[in-house]
Amino acid sequence: MLPDDITTPAFLIERSVLHRNCDRMRRKALDSGVAFRPHVKTHKSVEIGRIQHGGWTGPITVSTLAEAEYFAANGFRDITYAFPIAPDKLARVAALAARIERLSVLIDSERALHAIEEYHASHGHVFDVFLKVDCGYHRAGVDPDSPDSVRLATAIARSEAARMQGLLTHAGHSYNASGVEDIRRIAAEELACLTRFRALLATEGLGETLRSVGSTPTASVVDTFSNCDEVRPGNYVFYDAFQATIGSCALADVACSVLATVVGSYPERGALIVDAGALAMSKDRGPDHVDPQFGYGIVCDISLRPLPMRLVALSQEHGKIEAHTHVPVGTRLRIIPNHSCLTAAMFDRYYILDRGKVVDQWKPVRGW
Amino acid sequence: MLPDDITTPAFLIERSVLHRNCDRMRRKALDSGVAFRPHVKTHKSVEIGRIQHGGWTGPITVSTLAEAEYFAANGFRDITYAFPIAPDKLARVAALAARIERLSVLIDSERALHAIEEYHASHGHVFDVFLKVDCGYHRAGVDPDSPDSVRLATAIARSEAARMQGLLTHAGHSYNASGVEDIRRIAAEELACLTRFRALLATEGLGETLRSVGSTPTASVVDTFSNCDEVRPGNYVFYDAFQATIGSCALADVACSVLATVVGSYPERGALIVDAGALAMSKDRGPDHVDPQFGYGIVCDISLRPLPMRLVALSQEHGKIEAHTHVPVGTRLRIIPNHSCLTAAMFDRYYILDRGKVVDQWKPVRGW
Repeated sequence: MLPDDITTPAFLIERSVLHRNCDRMRRKALDSGVAFRPHVKTHKSVEIGRIQHGGWTGPITVSTLAEAEYFAANGFRDITYAFPIAPDKLARVAALAARIERLSVLIDSERALHAIEEYHASHGHVFDVFLKVDCGYHRAGVDPDSPDSVRLATAIARSEAARMQGLLTHAGHSYNASGVEDIRRIAAEELACLTRFRALLATEGLGETLRSVGSTPTASVVDTFSNCDEVRPGNYVFYDAFQATIGSCALADVACSVLATVVGSYPERGALIVDAGALAMSKDRGPDHVDPQFGYGIVCDISLRPLPMRLVALSQEHGKIEAHTHVPVGTRLRIIPNHSCLTAAMFDRYYILDRGKVVDQWKPVRGW
Repeated sequence: MLPDDITTPAFLIERSVLHRNCDRMRRKALDSGVAFRPHVKTHKSVEIGRIQHGGWTGPITVSTLAEAEYFAANGFRDITYAFPIAPDKLARVAALAARIERLSVLIDSERALHAIEEYHASHGHVFDVFLKVDCGYHRAGVDPDSPDSVRLATAIARSEAARMQGLLTHAGHSYNASGVEDIRRIAAEELACLTRFRALLATEGLGETLRSVGSTPTASVVDTFSNCDEVRPGNYVFYDAFQATIGSCALADVACSVLATVVGSYPERGALIVDAGALAMSKDRGPDHVDPQFGYGIVCDISLRPLPMRLVALSQEHGKIEAHTHVPVGTRLRIIPNHSCLTAAMFDRYYILDRGKVVDQWKPVRGW
C-alpha cells in the first residue's frame, strides 16, 4: 500500500503504465516509419521526456519557452516550440536556438514573418519555422484553402530570415469526439487536409514539405501513422478521464491520479469533502459533451478501483463528492483527473509508484 | 506604459488599488470593533499579508499548511488553518504550533476530535480548535440545528486535547448571489444562524463563544460588521470579475489582471489567440449564473479599459478571444480574471505596478 507520509493532495504516477503508454506510442511511430517528436507539455518533466524516447533525449515539442529552456538545459537538442510566436519573444528564441541544434518556431501570419525578418535584419539570426495550418480545429493556423496561405508558405520558404521546417497542424477538435469512429474520421480528415495543402504548395515549387501532426486522440486510435511525416502526441503519457471517455484509451491506461484525504463526511446529505480542490485538480469539466454530469474526475479507492461517487464541485482547496456510502474522515481516495495536462501543472512534485511503493520523485518545470 | 520586458502571460497588481481595498476592509473591521483575521489564500504572499494589516504581521487565516509554515517563517504568529483538519496532518500542525503563538485548526466531526485526542494522549499537544458550522453553504461544517452539533461543541470545550477558540463559518453561498441585496440577505442569515447556535451553546454553559465569519461578498456589502466577533475575508485584496459582477465591488476595485500578448489574429473568423490559456487564467467559469456567456475573464486594453471582446475558450496555453475588430499580432491586452484566487495561484511571480511602472515583484508560496 501507499506510504502514509505523502502529504495530500499529491500527484501519483504509476510507473509501469507510464512506460507502457510511452513504449506503445514510440513503437507505433517507429513501425510506421515517421519521425517522433512527442509533446512534453503534459508532464514538463525531463525524466518523462527521456522515457518518451526510450531513454534518449530525442526531438520534442514544447508549449512554452520555459519548457524549451529547461529541456535544453537537460540535454534535449531539437525542440519545436509549438505555439504561435509572439514578436517580443524572438530574442529569447534566438538566444536558446544558438545553444542547441534546432529550436523551431510556429508562425501563421505575415505579421509574424515580418517580425522574424526584422529581427534577422538587425541581429542576423535565421529562424527554423513551421507554418501552422488549421485543419479543422479553428484555434490557430492558416486556412489551407486560402491563396493567402500558399503565399505565406512561399514567403517563408524564400525568406532569408527563415529555414522552412514544414507544415504543422493539431487536430484539437478530436477532443470534441464522442467515440473512436469519430476520432478516426477526424484523424483521416486532418491528414487529407494537410496532404492536399502540401500538394498545392508543391505546384508552387515547395517540394516535399514535412507534415507534422499531433493530438493524443488521433494518434492513439490509428493502428499505424500514414500520410504524415512526423507525429507529436503528448497527453498519451498519462492519458486521463477525458481520453478514456472519448475512447483514446482504456481507463487502465491512465497513469496518473491525485491522492486525496477525506476531511469531512456528511452522510445525512450524501456528501464528502476531500482536500483536493480546484488548485489540485484544475477546474476542467472533462468530457461533459459526452456526459453533462461527469464531474471533476473519477473517484477511486486507494487501489484505483472506481467508486460509485461523483466529484461534483471544486472550490479552491475543497473537493465535494456526492457519496451514498459512509466513508470515514481520514480515508484516502485517488481521483483520476479529467485533464492530466492541467492537473499535473498544479503540482511541484510527482510521486512515482511501482507496485504501491514510491520509487522516485520528479519535479516538473513551470511558468513561461 | 508597461515595460516591454515582462514575459507574457504575467500577473499584474495595481498597488494603489490593492492598498485601497486592504485599507478599506481593515478600517471597517476596526470601526466595527471586531477582530480582523484576513484570509491570505487569495495571494499567498507575505507582502500582501502585511498590507492587509496596515504593515503589521497580524492574525491571519490560511487554507493550507504550506501557507501556515511560510507565513509563520515570515513573522506571522497567530494563524487559523481554516480547512477541516485531516488526522494525518496533526503532527505537522503540532510542530508548527509549537513555534508560534497560536495555530488553530478546524474540526466538524467526532472523528476529528478523536484524532486530536489520540494525538494528545501520545504526544501531549493541546490543539487550538474552531468548530466549523454550516450556515447555509453546505460544503463543510456541522448543522447548527442538530443536537449532535451541540454535543460536539461541548465535547471540544471539555476535551483536554483542545482549547476551544470559537465557532467558524463561511458564507460561500454568497457567491451564488446575483446582486447586493441578495448578498446582504445571506450575510444577515449567516450571522443570525451563528448567533442562534451560540445562544444554544450558552444554555449548555459554553459562555460567549467567539463567532468568526468570512466571505468577501458579505464582508464587502455590509457597512459595518455586527453580530460577529471576528471577520476573515480574503478575496477583497484583489477582487475579480466575479465579485464585480455580483456586486461585491466596482470593476475599478479589481487590483489584478493578466498581461497577455496577441499571438494570432483571424479577422475572417472574428477571433484572436492570446498566450494566456488555462494555465494562466484557470478554467473558472466566473459568474455564469448571472451571465451564461460571460467567458473566462474581462478583456481590456493595456490601460485596463474593457474592450468589446469575449474570452470564449481556453486550452492549456491558448486563450481564444471573440473579437470583431482587427488587433495585430504582438498587441498586449490585459485580462481581468474571473477568480483571482485561482488565477494568482498559477503564477510564481506578481508584478506590482504604480502608475504604469513595475515597482516591485513578489513571490507567493504554493503547494500544500
